[in-house]
Amino acid sequence: MGKTNKIKKLKFRIKALKAALTTASTHTHAVAPLAPASFPDLPVIDGVRFAAAEAGVKYKGRLDVMLAVCDPGTSIAGVFTRSATRSANVLDCQEKLGSDPAAGAAIIVNSGNSNAFTGRAGAGSVKAISETVSKVTAVPENRVYSASTGVIGEPLPHDRITAKLDELSAALDPASLGLAARAIMTTDTFPKGAMAEVSIDSKPVKIAGIAKGSGMIAPDMATMLVYIFTDAKVEQPVLQDMLGDLTNQTFNNITVDSDTSTSDTLILAATGASGVAVTAETEAFRTGLHDVMLDLAHQVVRDGEGATKFVEVRVTGAANDADARTHAMAIANSPLVKTAVAGEDPNWGRVVMAIGKSGAAADRDLITIHFGDILVAEKGWVAESYREDAGAAYMRQDTLLISVDLGLGSGEAQVWTCDLTHGYIQINADYRS
Amino acid sequence: MGKTNKIKKLKFRIKALKAALTTASTHTHAVAPLAPASFPDLPVIDGVRFAAAEAGVKYKGRLDVMLAVCDPGTSIAGVFTRSATRSANVLDCQEKLGSDPAAGAAIIVNSGNSNAFTGRAGAGSVKAISETVSKVTAVPENRVYSASTGVIGEPLPHDRITAKLDELSAALDPASLGLAARAIMTTDTFPKGAMAEVSIDSKPVKIAGIAKGSGMIAPDMATMLVYIFTDAKVEQPVLQDMLGDLTNQTFNNITVDSDTSTSDTLILAATGASGVAVTAETEAFRTGLHDVMLDLAHQVVRDGEGATKFVEVRVTGAANDADARTHAMAIANSPLVKTAVAGEDPNWGRVVMAIGKSGAAADRDLITIHFGDILVAEKGWVAESYREDAGAAYMRQDTLLISVDLGLGSGEAQVWTCDLTHGYIQINADYRS
Repeated sequence: MGKTNKIKKLKFRIKALKAALTTASTHTHAVAPLAPASFPDLPVIDGVRFAAAEAGVKYKGRLDVMLAVCDPGTSIAGVFTRSATRSANVLDCQEKLGSDPAAGAAIIVNSGNSNAFTGRAGAGSVKAISETVSKVTAVPENRVYSASTGVIGEPLPHDRITAKLDELSAALDPASLGLAARAIMTTDTFPKGAMAEVSIDSKPVKIAGIAKGSGMIAPDMATMLVYIFTDAKVEQPVLQDMLGDLTNQTFNNITVDSDTSTSDTLILAATGASGVAVTAETEAFRTGLHDVMLDLAHQVVRDGEGATKFVEVRVTGAANDADARTHAMAIANSPLVKTAVAGEDPNWGRVVMAIGKSGAAADRDLITIHFGDILVAEKGWVAESYREDAGAAYMRQDTLLISVDLGLGSGEAQVWTCDLTHGYIQINADYRS
Repeated sequence: MGKTNKIKKLKFRIKALKAALTTASTHTHAVAPLAPASFPDLPVIDGVRFAAAEAGVKYKGRLDVMLAVCDPGTSIAGVFTRSATRSANVLDCQEKLGSDPAAGAAIIVNSGNSNAFTGRAGAGSVKAISETVSKVTAVPENRVYSASTGVIGEPLPHDRITAKLDELSAALDPASLGLAARAIMTTDTFPKGAMAEVSIDSKPVKIAGIAKGSGMIAPDMATMLVYIFTDAKVEQPVLQDMLGDLTNQTFNNITVDSDTSTSDTLILAATGASGVAVTAETEAFRTGLHDVMLDLAHQVVRDGEGATKFVEVRVTGAANDADARTHAMAIANSPLVKTAVAGEDPNWGRVVMAIGKSGAAADRDLITIHFGDILVAEKGWVAESYREDAGAAYMRQDTLLISVDLGLGSGEAQVWTCDLTHGYIQINADYRS
């Protein structure tokens, strides 16, 4: 790279950092009370470079486009929303999943407009963006994965994005994943990042990911956009299987409001730059990836719209795992449970109600309920040892565990959710204006 | 009846009316903005008498128990919650449904405590109350239908109810159905009543009903407590079939918050006192009963916790009726749709999102959406003729129609719901204290 180019690139990076600061300071919502203390210092993943820019898709003066370019040999795995009205970008990504890794890959994401329910024009926007990305990055078009997040049903002004691609391409840098995390935010109140470093045959392998939430967070698929990168060398089918399994243990077990996005996308890119081969049996890698995914999933819940409490719902003793999950989700999605949590009311009667309505097997008189370590109810009634003031004191914490044992079998599930507060109403009753 | 008794009865009635006034004026919540202008002047249904009293189950100074006694020959039909954690009263009513009508029937309901998830003690309370009702009314115990509504999981102080039964029995009066409507209220902001008079073979038949809501209002069964009386003569199996059919067209198509109560009970009593026989084919009666049920169901939605908008969701063109109902319920229950309605935001993108997540068949590019008469979206995109200011003006009304045509088949459904507001959070984040 010549000095002129280097200077150009550094200047661009400074501009992006300034925009990130503006994004952070002009954000309309205060940072969620459950936010982590700070954004993690994400490691460089060899084999992939990032850039972010202000394209003015909807708002001016904030980062709203990210570009990632992966080296040849990168395997791409993906999990997407199962919505019947999914966006043009999702349909396009799904088609491209099996393509040849030898050619590398590019990921392009904008916030501000979801390009969902935009008719034939939506597919046209995806095509225009993919073509331009391919032209400026030399990655073939069938290896360009796009996503759009924001308002549904308004035409995507894709020219504003394509106009920025030369600039983005010139600015690509291995250290810019944190900027990318900021560019994909919509109603998020903090950028979300997570990392793991695992040792395989005494060699280090790195995993780093970013995510955005934070409304329409529901079981199938739980998050809106997640991008995870690793320098491990993993064959695509192995990577895809692993991603599917771990999604069921992480992102598919979180819920904010039971609504499902039309754009949910989770992409995992393995560049292979570490030279360390990973198979389906490499437990250290699987564990590291699981931890990064769970961390990001929890951050999405912690930034759930209006959330003031992080709640784990753990169900045991169900007839089977599927029943356990049905009960756990019924509890986690119940507006009456969620408002009781918001009001710091140990209203276990509403937990019983949610179990009753879930449709899965339950015997009223075999149910045991704990709040944290406090035995609340057993044998179909409030526990003799239970004291309301102990329950009320527990509910004042900002991280809560609601455990239910059904006494029927060995089915288990764990889901994570947040409370339902005035903040959720405020954010959503006036999102578009 | 001797003069002393008559005076006693009139005095009791005055006391109950005063209590009803206190109930109305000390109610913690302001009357819902969607409430009807006034409580209807319900007709006397020959063959059934009512009384209401203050038993102090939870709160002092308000009516909280109602008793209804039906003459011998009354057919009783019932529909109940399908919750797996349903209350002791519901289980007891379900057992008693097939019993002999020759003996008459009694209905006893308290508010303030739901007697749900109260273990073996719950069944004991039902037994104690039923026994005492049987003793004072001479109705056999297997014809005493009880219900309790209010907080879950606290022991029902049934002695306070049984202590009032002599008084209640002495006060029974055909004109007291309106007092009964007030005695069964919990978080309701107005008492709910509806009536119809139909002509069958030129003879008049009357139908009158009362209901209470207004949280935990969800598809299976939609309302908490409904009691409907008619002087028609109907065999129990015919009455039961008719009630089931019409419940699917009315109460099972309303939703406030997708939560399902443990106590939902709908009882229909046909005294036969008019001497007019009704069969499954008597359309005039079926229509009259349908209208009373739909009216009460709509009133439950209009008193939905925090509701400021009454919303009809109409789905047509689905692959079949079941799919249509799944889509309609997904729209009606979506927190994002409900908050958009609260914010008067014509955010049709959220309607598309809800269709997509419902799980029923949909083709994005065949969906047509109307708000009232305004064509909003068609062919997978916003309609060319649509103007946002027209949509916004429409949303400012307090009664809204959201119509969706899926363009797939002839499946249809209609459901009714309300918006999700700060009021809902206020009421439910602090209900027990």
